[in-house]
Amino acid sequence: MITQIGILVHDIEAVSKAYADFFGVDTPEWFWTDTPDKAQTEYLGEPSQARAKLAFFNMDSVQLELIEPDSHPSTWRNHLNEHGEGPHHIAFVIEGMKEKIAIMEGKGMKLQQKGEYTGGRYAYLDSVPQLKILVELLENDR
Amino acid sequence: MITQIGILVHDIEAVSKAYADFFGVDTPEWFWTDTPDKAQTEYLGEPSQARAKLAFFNMDSVQLELIEPDSHPSTWRNHLNEHGEGPHHIAFVIEGMKEKIAIMEGKGMKLQQKGEYTGGRYAYLDSVPQLKILVELLENDR
Repeated sequence: MITQIGILVHDIEAVSKAYADFFGVDTPEWFWTDTPDKAQTEYLGEPSQARAKLAFFNMDSVQLELIEPDSHPSTWRNHLNEHGEGPHHIAFVIEGMKEKIAIMEGKGMKLQQKGEYTGGRYAYLDSVPQLKILVELLENDR
Repeated sequence: MITQIGILVHDIEAVSKAYADFFGVDTPEWFWTDTPDKAQTEYLGEPSQARAKLAFFNMDSVQLELIEPDSHPSTWRNHLNEHGEGPHHIAFVIEGMKEKIAIMEGKGMKLQQKGEYTGGRYAYLDSVPQLKILVELLENDR
């Protein structure tokens, strides 16, 4: 089940306001992803200092995530530089992160970035050749 | 409420198989959009003969639509030529198409394409400057 659509932006406050206006809701507060010591971010197999500003709109069906990355190497910064603003990923909540990553790697979808967040962890797999969009896996602690 | 994510592809059969494999479901049958006499497609204010092959994956939360356009002028063909395969739009089911289009045009989101389908009608509004993704409105007859 698709739980999230992630969209890269240059100016999270401006785009958050535009979505709030469009949906007729309050503008959500944005916040920074966790510091590198907590997030333990790895991008292309190497530790990265990368962080991003995030803002969420919780729709009935699916969560919309706006992402304004900092300048450090990450799937966010790289994608924004290469493709400009716009859709970045669709996300799925899963259990058993290691096994699910192994299954996807078995289908030729390479692990691109992973990290921890308070209450769980994420992984971006390069599913673009097969699915034409990046897939993010989210595993939440119980 | 976001009801659909639309993804442009060059080969709908290949990508449908990849998604079916990824989701562990049967590969859906693709079908052509309605003929121009029924669809009454307009692109950038002009009638267009454009059609597309469509395939749908109905997830619990949101519908995934794969779109392989023909060669006639359309938002699909233009976007695929300019940006390659990947996400094209997010869709919302609404009531009152004319009023909703007027509201969005009032926010500077121009009507890009509209047409009819069996049981309803759609419109694509260019919300990319504001929302960083194209919005589709869907109105289904009761």
